[in-house]
Amino acid sequence: MPRFFIPESPRPGETEISVGGGDALHISKSLRMKKGDKIILARMGEEYHCYIKETSSERVVCEISEIKKALSEPSVRLSLFQAAPKGGKLENIIQKTTELGVSRVVPFISKRCVSRPGGKDEKTRRLRKIAEEAAKQSMRGVIPEISETLSFEEAVAEASEYDMKLICYENGGERLNALNFPAGGSIAVMTGAEGGFERDEAEYAVSRGMTPVWLGERILRCETCPVAVTAVIMNLTGNL
Amino acid sequence: MPRFFIPESPRPGETEISVGGGDALHISKSLRMKKGDKIILARMGEEYHCYIKETSSERVVCEISEIKKALSEPSVRLSLFQAAPKGGKLENIIQKTTELGVSRVVPFISKRCVSRPGGKDEKTRRLRKIAEEAAKQSMRGVIPEISETLSFEEAVAEASEYDMKLICYENGGERLNALNFPAGGSIAVMTGAEGGFERDEAEYAVSRGMTPVWLGERILRCETCPVAVTAVIMNLTGNL
Repeated sequence: MPRFFIPESPRPGETEISVGGGDALHISKSLRMKKGDKIILARMGEEYHCYIKETSSERVVCEISEIKKALSEPSVRLSLFQAAPKGGKLENIIQKTTELGVSRVVPFISKRCVSRPGGKDEKTRRLRKIAEEAAKQSMRGVIPEISETLSFEEAVAEASEYDMKLICYENGGERLNALNFPAGGSIAVMTGAEGGFERDEAEYAVSRGMTPVWLGERILRCETCPVAVTAVIMNLTGNL
Repeated sequence: MPRFFIPESPRPGETEISVGGGDALHISKSLRMKKGDKIILARMGEEYHCYIKETSSERVVCEISEIKKALSEPSVRLSLFQAAPKGGKLENIIQKTTELGVSRVVPFISKRCVSRPGGKDEKTRRLRKIAEEAAKQSMRGVIPEISETLSFEEAVAEASEYDMKLICYENGGERLNALNFPAGGSIAVMTGAEGGFERDEAEYAVSRGMTPVWLGERILRCETCPVAVTAVIMNLTGNL
């Protein structure tokens, strides 16, 4: 069933939701949905199961038939802190990890980053669009938050606030299997760009309370690592 | 350290390995390696740690200093049976799952496959090249085998020979966490193209002894699923 995210939750007692903008055009023209068709509108982990009441290319009015908690949301809040990789890899990482259930992606700049994202606003807007599309397609109840790009130190400071904070480090650390993941709560995972982290970066992160994690002898590309780690953590916390 | 795969193992007692073809050109010209440089030659899970003795663009002679078992090879043999997806996705899947440790990728055709690979030989050659490159870069001791494309029935028959055989099915099945993975032995995992499997395909696979596996409420793209499942199985068997 088609699924769209809405920018505001309906107020208690409200029975209709009005969808505007590009989504109205998409629903009425591309999908050619009509009065009586079923649609799911989602926001913040709530799903509003609706029937379409009226369509035009500017506005689609939907009548709420049922409100459900989105079953697809994981029990843990996993934030991926991703050092900015080259080319279109970040887009790809955001798409795949959204499907797998991350709550948030925080790009940051580390020493080995070749890419230094400029023109922040436009780039961030595009990344948010990718997260929204992936969230729709994978039936998420939430669009993952895409943060502005941080410095390495800012990223570590931010990650330190989480219940569990991991940094993937090629030169050694704990195995994911050996960690005790909480059934709920928040987890931060920091992964590198091409070439991973410098030793002093890993040491800095550890000095700030992060746990180094080692993924074994096989060297994963920087765009494979976040996908693999997200899948494994979702599995270990009962969410995949 | 640069790593290349060799087509034949040296005979017992032999102290030199001669590398020819494109690899010789790559070692001597692109990498500009010289006499005395260290190199790893690998085959079938063995690593030959060598010093270069002579280089030319046609032939590089390497002297074996040590033979080691490749630490990077997982304890399980995992074969991915992948329904042929659209476009360049299969290349991507082979690259990522090679990094994560698969032993073999078997493409096959299911009902929902849009792609019907023709010109088999050339395509398979290209896929094998991708597996080889990914194996080098990720430090594998083995190049995963890339099989010719099978029919769905052939793929199920082949998968049935494995110690454990799983089919990823969107409409329900066991959770990966609930399965008892062997510490060694062979595992076959079958994953779908865009849109997954038809119900009768899943039923057929189950009637032939395969276990349906369900990855939860979030719908994964066909190129995300094999990467996620490979990562999770490698983790659950102590190999990631």
